[in-house]
Amino acid sequence: MSKDLKKIDINEIKSPELLKDLSIKELELLCASIREEIIDKTSINGGHVASNLGVVELTVALHSVFDFKKDKLLLDVGHQCYAHKILTGRSLQNLRKKDGISGFEKRHESVYDCFEAGHSSTSLSAAYGMAVVRDQEKANYDVVAVIGDGAITSGLAFEGLNNIGRGDSKVIIIFNDNEMSISKSTGGIARFLQRIRTSVSYNKKKKAYQRFMCKTRFGFWLFNISARIKNRFKKMFLPSNIFDAMGCAYIGPIDGHNIKELQKALRQAKKSSKSVVIHTLTVKGKGYKYAEEDKKGTWHGVPPFNKETGEFIKNKEYPSWSKEIASLVYDFMSKHQDTILINPAMIEGSELGTLFHDFKSRCYDVGICESHAFSMASGIALNSYHPIISIYSTFMQRAFDEIQQDLARMDLNCTILVDRSGLIGADGETHQGIFDESMLYTIPNVTISMPSNKMEAKILLEESYLNHGVFAIRYPRDYLKNEGSVVNFKYGEWFMVNNAKSDDVIVTFGPIIADVKELFPNVDIVNAIYQKPILKENVEKLLKYKRIIIYNPYATKEGFVNNFVEMLTLYYYRGEIVILAVKEDFIKAGTQAEQMQECGVSLDHLKAKLNSDKGVE
Amino acid sequence: MSKDLKKIDINEIKSPELLKDLSIKELELLCASIREEIIDKTSINGGHVASNLGVVELTVALHSVFDFKKDKLLLDVGHQCYAHKILTGRSLQNLRKKDGISGFEKRHESVYDCFEAGHSSTSLSAAYGMAVVRDQEKANYDVVAVIGDGAITSGLAFEGLNNIGRGDSKVIIIFNDNEMSISKSTGGIARFLQRIRTSVSYNKKKKAYQRFMCKTRFGFWLFNISARIKNRFKKMFLPSNIFDAMGCAYIGPIDGHNIKELQKALRQAKKSSKSVVIHTLTVKGKGYKYAEEDKKGTWHGVPPFNKETGEFIKNKEYPSWSKEIASLVYDFMSKHQDTILINPAMIEGSELGTLFHDFKSRCYDVGICESHAFSMASGIALNSYHPIISIYSTFMQRAFDEIQQDLARMDLNCTILVDRSGLIGADGETHQGIFDESMLYTIPNVTISMPSNKMEAKILLEESYLNHGVFAIRYPRDYLKNEGSVVNFKYGEWFMVNNAKSDDVIVTFGPIIADVKELFPNVDIVNAIYQKPILKENVEKLLKYKRIIIYNPYATKEGFVNNFVEMLTLYYYRGEIVILAVKEDFIKAGTQAEQMQECGVSLDHLKAKLNSDKGVE
Repeated sequence: MSKDLKKIDINEIKSPELLKDLSIKELELLCASIREEIIDKTSINGGHVASNLGVVELTVALHSVFDFKKDKLLLDVGHQCYAHKILTGRSLQNLRKKDGISGFEKRHESVYDCFEAGHSSTSLSAAYGMAVVRDQEKANYDVVAVIGDGAITSGLAFEGLNNIGRGDSKVIIIFNDNEMSISKSTGGIARFLQRIRTSVSYNKKKKAYQRFMCKTRFGFWLFNISARIKNRFKKMFLPSNIFDAMGCAYIGPIDGHNIKELQKALRQAKKSSKSVVIHTLTVKGKGYKYAEEDKKGTWHGVPPFNKETGEFIKNKEYPSWSKEIASLVYDFMSKHQDTILINPAMIEGSELGTLFHDFKSRCYDVGICESHAFSMASGIALNSYHPIISIYSTFMQRAFDEIQQDLARMDLNCTILVDRSGLIGADGETHQGIFDESMLYTIPNVTISMPSNKMEAKILLEESYLNHGVFAIRYPRDYLKNEGSVVNFKYGEWFMVNNAKSDDVIVTFGPIIADVKELFPNVDIVNAIYQKPILKENVEKLLKYKRIIIYNPYATKEGFVNNFVEMLTLYYYRGEIVILAVKEDFIKAGTQAEQMQECGVSLDHLKAKLNSDKGVE
Repeated sequence: MSKDLKKIDINEIKSPELLKDLSIKELELLCASIREEIIDKTSINGGHVASNLGVVELTVALHSVFDFKKDKLLLDVGHQCYAHKILTGRSLQNLRKKDGISGFEKRHESVYDCFEAGHSSTSLSAAYGMAVVRDQEKANYDVVAVIGDGAITSGLAFEGLNNIGRGDSKVIIIFNDNEMSISKSTGGIARFLQRIRTSVSYNKKKKAYQRFMCKTRFGFWLFNISARIKNRFKKMFLPSNIFDAMGCAYIGPIDGHNIKELQKALRQAKKSSKSVVIHTLTVKGKGYKYAEEDKKGTWHGVPPFNKETGEFIKNKEYPSWSKEIASLVYDFMSKHQDTILINPAMIEGSELGTLFHDFKSRCYDVGICESHAFSMASGIALNSYHPIISIYSTFMQRAFDEIQQDLARMDLNCTILVDRSGLIGADGETHQGIFDESMLYTIPNVTISMPSNKMEAKILLEESYLNHGVFAIRYPRDYLKNEGSVVNFKYGEWFMVNNAKSDDVIVTFGPIIADVKELFPNVDIVNAIYQKPILKENVEKLLKYKRIIIYNPYATKEGFVNNFVEMLTLYYYRGEIVILAVKEDFIKAGTQAEQMQECGVSLDHLKAKLNSDKGVE
């Protein structure tokens, strides 16, 4: 290493302005330090490793060409913001912890964060909105959106691109292509991109052709005359790729780890008068062996890990709910040959790898296309098969209309496995699974359920195969600690899990039941395993109690809780009703325990409510 | 006309099988009769005129080549099903009436309807789902989706196309391109299609080039040698259009009014082993002067009209709510120069024409891209402008996640004008505006309001400009009969509109208030103009009443009603609570009055409840 090279201590970085004075070599050195820091801090805090390691050079190049105090930088989803955070003076020390630095762009953290996301594919639309305002104000700055090849397959990104294609307000799009979304990208677009990648670069090839032709005088003449003739038919040539077709200039594909090439392209884009797509090829996990070799997406979002061995530090005592549900679905799909499983790009997260391997022809990874997942399911159900849609609670929000119109409206049978329901911990406010229950509650013909143990999950899964229309089974981001034993309950039926002949009754559901039972052996406890519909019989049995405590630590009150209360009202229930439900707010990062505390749904809160003197009015 | 030509009486048609025996000339004759029938019946019943007139030949060609008792026909949205209905033995006599023939595909009507829609762009995903099942069962039939150039701009259609592009299950896509969605298509895709159209056909042009070159021996030699050299660089040539790029074979563009050409293309598609897109060019409104000349979309969905003059038969006494809201927005946008209006392809329906004309640079028609509309709005709000999104209640369902994540989560200010809230009449179960209130209710930081007259609307609009986050103003598909007078109410505040010092109080809102007042002069009536948030002060004032009647004829009970009841419970209200809200179901076509009757929210229902002897318990 040359003595003259300046090595930056990343803990000393206050702002990205220092980049302007660095040579390419020095920038490369800096990239290595950033990479080290990302690996180090995520190994302690967990986080998004692969995507962040893939964009280190890109982020450095962006900050060296633009000034994001005035220019706008929109990182789609935000899974690639760590280098940006470091360069803008934020330490990853408390990454994803309560009151620490978020794993996504957050406006309150820095003037360099002008945007926030968490759900995929919003950046193009938002960037366009920003550019529209800029042009209204006749201001002069750039709006730059960075979006991956997974996010681009979402319909929302396409809508954004299509509207940018109007050509009235310029946006610079960095298309970060690493051949993966979270797991391997699928579908027509993915194949199309593969073709671009194998062709290296349209422009390069064109130049190679030109060079070859012009090597001889005859070739030169031939090239010129054929080009001239061809130009007369120019209109016959249609755009050479989708971005071009949509009305954007296209630069690329270029090496996304080559800072010099990146800077050149970015400067070129800056000069362009119309919207530009810069297509960069990057390697997910770049610079960290384990992440780089991963082709499944295991290194997308990870728990803390051992840096040396690449081994995840996990609770090994219990399996996750995701894993156990997947194993039940395995039996279910073996038994019912007319089932088809659909998942939007979360194979790893929902632990569906074995299912996708063993039932290859009946499992569909549809990419980040949640809306499509449910409309496709409607086609399957209309053709008399039984679709199973496995999806994260928070991402299901993308498909409200399709669930309502394409499935529930026609009362079609399907099973929805709602993974990561309830409070979800470190991903924070953009990923909470506390809204799907109330969302589904507004839709007629929908069943909502939540098992408290594996046996209940198995029974619910079997029930969902029967003729009940849309059937949602919710389960938390947690370990499954309770196998459970055989219980008998009919569709919609609630049952007592503790019979103490008390004046109070706690109505609750889900895995928390085990804790509630342990804590309150002297209180009647009802397992409201079906949150929707609420059968009259269930309500009638409760009217005798002096106090009904409704405890829902998995959702806000707009769904089950309020509907249950309304039913009690219709029955002129005159005892006391106590409600504990997740507060209606966007809950920030923290551990799940911290979040339960914050939301007023911890067991301590329940205890306090139960022991309060306040009796029946 | 030759004597030999067979003329079909369309009232005698039992099934499309008769088409197999007809000559092209006879099919053309039949098309003319179908066209006449469509104009005749829609002039009486209202309906979708332009889109249905555009696909008469296409529908005839489809039924003459396929057998849709076994093959599957999916008509995207369904705005083009009338000819299909006639050919499958259904009369348009009671089109869109209660218990009559629906204006959309409906499975219960006919074995020829395998699909149902109403919201745009679901057909590709559903078709793919059907094809997947077909291939699982190793069955042998075709799945055909017909989708327009408006619907294709929706992200959902793109997601469907992308997944069809996996290439595993064949779907035939008829891309019905009439250069309009409902109004003129916009964006990159629209421009791209324009290029295809002006280039007529890539293949034709290529052939013309070849022909030109081969006219002389020299040209022939030149063509061949340059082609040979070019082939060595073949990989540099990328797919020539988007469908091709996405992995589908592409046929077209072809004349969508030429039955022979259509049949040829359909047979070719039938034979193809992979998914095919047939690109047909059609003229919206074809064969009916007024509809054909319309470039604005006025003839998309129409009320009954005078066939001869093309004049709509409308209630002229009162203007529509849409029109009056648009006029208020006009003043609002004049006053507040930092406002930007976004509308997804409903300029005509929401009567925004004048606004789009006079505020051209601040009005955006984003096409059928509801999700984008709200993400774009977030970019605008992040950049300190105030977005106004005008949207139909039912289509807003497409944007649940974007409203929640991109606007409400960041508590960004915006105004949502929710057109066609409540029961909507003839479009039936796919278009009801009864779910948006409960949907929005599940989202933190959202204000929901509904004015009862124009003055209230004006006040709410002004209030929405202030710092209240996401602010929804709902209004019905109805005439505005009441200008109203100046009232004073603060943000969130309810107010009495009738003070009779009664023991009962009716809590209601929206235009129905005028009727309620008239009907119950001796009952206290509170205008709950803000459905969310419900301020404590509002609730406290009501605790004195012996009976609280909550009357919401504009939404199901999952939103305002249940939340209000829950609040009364928290206050230990011990009087009687009576609830009248729209029943939670998908309400079929009929007049709005019929639908109110069916849903238990007519004024008769209210009267019966009020006069029932049942007092306080």
